[in-house]
Amino acid sequence: MSEQARPVRRIPEATVTRLPVYLRSLYELAETRTATISSEQLAEMAGVNAAKVRKDLSYLGSYGTRGVGYDVQYLLFQMSRELGLTQDWPVVIVGVGNLGHALANYRGFGDRGFPVAALIDADPNRVGQEIGPLRIRHIDELSDIVGELKVAIGVVATPATSAQEVVDRLVAAGVRSILNFAPASVVVPDGVSLRKVDLAVELQILSFYQQRSLAESDADAV
Amino acid sequence: MSEQARPVRRIPEATVTRLPVYLRSLYELAETRTATISSEQLAEMAGVNAAKVRKDLSYLGSYGTRGVGYDVQYLLFQMSRELGLTQDWPVVIVGVGNLGHALANYRGFGDRGFPVAALIDADPNRVGQEIGPLRIRHIDELSDIVGELKVAIGVVATPATSAQEVVDRLVAAGVRSILNFAPASVVVPDGVSLRKVDLAVELQILSFYQQRSLAESDADAV
Repeated sequence: MSEQARPVRRIPEATVTRLPVYLRSLYELAETRTATISSEQLAEMAGVNAAKVRKDLSYLGSYGTRGVGYDVQYLLFQMSRELGLTQDWPVVIVGVGNLGHALANYRGFGDRGFPVAALIDADPNRVGQEIGPLRIRHIDELSDIVGELKVAIGVVATPATSAQEVVDRLVAAGVRSILNFAPASVVVPDGVSLRKVDLAVELQILSFYQQRSLAESDADAV
Repeated sequence: MSEQARPVRRIPEATVTRLPVYLRSLYELAETRTATISSEQLAEMAGVNAAKVRKDLSYLGSYGTRGVGYDVQYLLFQMSRELGLTQDWPVVIVGVGNLGHALANYRGFGDRGFPVAALIDADPNRVGQEIGPLRIRHIDELSDIVGELKVAIGVVATPATSAQEVVDRLVAAGVRSILNFAPASVVVPDGVSLRKVDLAVELQILSFYQQRSLAESDADAV
């Protein structure tokens, strides 16, 4: 794919999951025309400690300059390249209920290199409907669509009961990256990447802090 | 709130964000009637290393038994208590477009202690519509609704342009935990917890692995 192959370094999975968080902070900095940033500042924005930031960035080959910090634009470039964001990865959304509909309209995808190339559903009542520039197509066309549109990522937004079948069909069609929004555990064969979005996780984190702050105000009241 | 106040221990933020991930694994284990689990097994399920699992669980006061591991049911109890999941935290969803609609129907919320207590919108065309058992109410009623229904968490699913105003109104109404789905950066005063869901982050992680696997197959082809 890339004209010049770069050596494949080993980046720990935990670091990979933090790169998009750093990236978001770097975009905010770039918007305010900030030229350089210290590991401490980036750590605070990303909510991790500074030693971890330095370690994570070292995997990208970035070490910063003592007393100056990191060059924001160069870090943006390195990180985008590392995350594969210097090219577009077309996305297919399977399941166009409310969630699929919301994802189809989600501004953040296309803007960041993940154009929604196709919308797919199994329900004949939905097939043919138009959402923005796209017409919903039938799941039986999946394999053709993936080939024609060079789909890189499949987003599963079906009910739980259909999730595994849809994942199997995506894999059979050659999709090797799957993002599952359905509230169901699904499995994929080796060589296919799977991420699950669990919307309740964030609520559980908030619940922790909510309980904690109530406990503290109870303690203050004693 | 709690009848008996437990001492407030300090749990690092990074650990808090991993607890829901462990919790999900533990629920899966409980479903298969697994009685005990080693830190290595839990680490593999959660995608972190075993030393980190042991450290994280030690903050809960759980140390496991050498050669046996951790008791799944007891760990579930401890973790649910720590995350404040032994009580319900009513949620209000503000913004009932496609995303708000999807969130209102998202089975995973109510099941896990986050009942959706109210739906709110500013659009007069939406106010009065019914979604499941709830009728969409007007944003001007927000303050009353929060008081009446003891709303603990506000979920913001508005367009980016309205997000900060809605957050301000939630805070003014007394909500101290906010989950922001709008693709906009918002600020909250001290004492209010804010989490942001950025749906593109997961796509960026997939993009990393997609690029990596293509680079590896290119290398194999040489």
